Amino acid sequence: MAETQGKVITCKGNCCGMAKEPLVIQEICVDPPQKMEVRVKILYSSICHTDLRAWTGVNEGERAFPRILGHEAVRIVESVGGVKDVKEGDYVIPTFNGECGECRVCTNGVSNLCERYKVDPMKRLMVNDGGTRFSTTTNKDGGSSQKQRVYHFLNTSTFTEYTVLDSACVVKIDPNAPLKQMSLLSCGVSTGVGAAWNTANVKEGTTTAVFGLGSVGLAAAEGARARGASRIIGVDANASKFEKGTSYPKDLTKPVHERIRELMSGGVDYSFECTGNVDVLREAFLSTQAGWGSTVLVGIYPTPKTLPLHPMELFDGRTITGSIFGGFKPKSQLPNFAQQCMKGVVKLEPFITNELPFEKINDAFQLLRDGKSLRCVLQISKFLKK
Amino acid sequence: MAETQGKVITCKGNCCGMAKEPLVIQEICVDPPQKMEVRVKILYSSICHTDLRAWTGVNEGERAFPRILGHEAVRIVESVGGVKDVKEGDYVIPTFNGECGECRVCTNGVSNLCERYKVDPMKRLMVNDGGTRFSTTTNKDGGSSQKQRVYHFLNTSTFTEYTVLDSACVVKIDPNAPLKQMSLLSCGVSTGVGAAWNTANVKEGTTTAVFGLGSVGLAAAEGARARGASRIIGVDANASKFEKGTSYPKDLTKPVHERIRELMSGGVDYSFECTGNVDVLREAFLSTQAGWGSTVLVGIYPTPKTLPLHPMELFDGRTITGSIFGGFKPKSQLPNFAQQCMKGVVKLEPFITNELPFEKINDAFQLLRDGKSLRCVLQISKFLKK
Ligand SMILES: [Zn+2]
Ligand SMILES: [Zn+2]
Ligand SMILES: [Zn+2]
Ligand SMILES: [Zn+2]
Repeated sequence: MAETQGKVITCKGNCCGMAKEPLVIQEICVDPPQKMEVRVKILYSSICHTDLRAWTGVNEGERAFPRILGHEAVRIVESVGGVKDVKEGDYVIPTFNGECGECRVCTNGVSNLCERYKVDPMKRLMVNDGGTRFSTTTNKDGGSSQKQRVYHFLNTSTFTEYTVLDSACVVKIDPNAPLKQMSLLSCGVSTGVGAAWNTANVKEGTTTAVFGLGSVGLAAAEGARARGASRIIGVDANASKFEKGTSYPKDLTKPVHERIRELMSGGVDYSFECTGNVDVLREAFLSTQAGWGSTVLVGIYPTPKTLPLHPMELFDGRTITGSIFGGFKPKSQLPNFAQQCMKGVVKLEPFITNELPFEKINDAFQLLRDGKSLRCVLQISKFLKK
Repeated sequence: MAETQGKVITCKGNCCGMAKEPLVIQEICVDPPQKMEVRVKILYSSICHTDLRAWTGVNEGERAFPRILGHEAVRIVESVGGVKDVKEGDYVIPTFNGECGECRVCTNGVSNLCERYKVDPMKRLMVNDGGTRFSTTTNKDGGSSQKQRVYHFLNTSTFTEYTVLDSACVVKIDPNAPLKQMSLLSCGVSTGVGAAWNTANVKEGTTTAVFGLGSVGLAAAEGARARGASRIIGVDANASKFEKGTSYPKDLTKPVHERIRELMSGGVDYSFECTGNVDVLREAFLSTQAGWGSTVLVGIYPTPKTLPLHPMELFDGRTITGSIFGGFKPKSQLPNFAQQCMKGVVKLEPFITNELPFEKINDAFQLLRDGKSLRCVLQISKFLKK
């Protein structure tokens, strides 16, 4: 039993005090886990565009400061609150899209949108008591100290040495897994590979177009490659990204979908829209084969614009579907996915383009904003592997 | 061999000379079938809203006069042009959505949108030679006669005693089938039942909402009933239609989807949009269960408006799909569907609300325009059953 069990842990955490302000590492108090909660020590955390978005506070409803951001990580369990499936010392990854295993959706089979713990960018409090497990202490002028609560983020909050999660959002992994890489399974890579495997169900010998070549788009391409897609075409406005894609339409005097239809004898079997731009969405939709083409949305669309598709365009046999967390049921399916990554079915290493110590978190944000990194992994805690 | 084989047949036909003008039965010359074409004698033809739409000439691109309308019928083969799968004397039904059996889509398996013969409201000429097989003869002032060509409609043209079709659009049926009822399989009933069976794949014990209670909507409800749906809810602006539906949301002070979600513990498993109205489409979409709800579009949307759905609304696990001809591959799958109708799995009789002789075709159109009939069957030719 950890000697910290049942006690408040004071540790280094990165508290985002105000939108767009530089992130400062400071002392954070982390309360013990309540019923069906897990407190973990974070080893590595990577950074994703969703962290950037939350940091800019662009969406009013999603704004909540002070807050601990971060949702991709790998961790070791410190203590649990009545949880059976993980115990102290287990290696785990957090998931922003939880799985309670008991609600109508979890028991229905197909969907991974758990009614209780599915991704919710508005959520900032724990389900148990509507409180937070994080706080900071500030010394007031009079000498007394005041506690201020710090909000949670995406069921996870990983830019801190310790965090508390609902057990529905904790996935146990093999302690022998390459830990830094496992952090990527918390979000970007699972989202992309799962979009190809679960949502589109890419078949061998088929063709794929990927719009937007960030981590998620490249992961969708990697998922299609692992399934034996015969051709994968990449589309991105940032030409520097093309070395990672396998081929791309060079003649841009006509709409991309026309060029793709020419190149791929009528269109691709699957397209993945990873940019979050509705005009690109339309191109992605029209790039697929009439009759059976499937477009999977994995971008986030901050625009108020509705779908630029006419209802009759849904009658050409093309389908369009949104995919959250790649359709993976995290607790049921991610351990197996992690095993497949360990076997090399999906290659995780190329996604880690940078590594930095926790203190350099602002540099890591800047790399992502400049489009200069796919994933930067931060080492949050120093630790000795057992 | 029919004594008319290889000769032009002069018969009674209903030629729509100009948009919105009363339909006049007159003499029509019907050429012999060319290669892979079939000439048939029409026994019964029913009337559908698509005929009405074409008659009004509302869409410029679809306008083509003079033209023989009609696309739901049952027929007997008079002669064929090198066709193997049907012969003189066979009972057949026409299908506006053909199946060549050879193109990429026909051989790909899933889709019924044959690349060569799929439904095309713009099409007015035969594929073989870009000509028509119909003509009328008018006597000019000088005493000489002039031939005027008459356009085809939806691969079918059934308001005439004889018509010529591509063999891809001819489906052979059991000669012992109830012929009047088989006419309904050419369009409305197949479209609705197939939307439930093939596109939505309705499962036993599930719930369904149907928006728009015309023939197609009621056929979708009948398809869901035949599959063992536990509850079917009907929604229509025309209250007189409700006696046909099983139940409906009575409190209309709130949006229909909210009322349906309350009634059906969170929403229905499937919804069918049969009105062609994009606002109703949005209600139909939002009426289904988050996580796995499926909305099938079977309406025709003449509006230039795009889908009133935000891209993020596709991330709640609800899907939306268009369905053409109920997803049935006509030549491969309709004969089996006809057998199931003969066994009573789907009841066709209630769909025939009126029967009239060919001469009363304008009255039949009026009944449909007034919303007073589901299907009116016209007796086109008198015949003796073998
Ligand atoms: Zn992310
Ligand atoms: Zn659940
Ligand atoms: Zn075909
Ligand atoms: Zn019709």
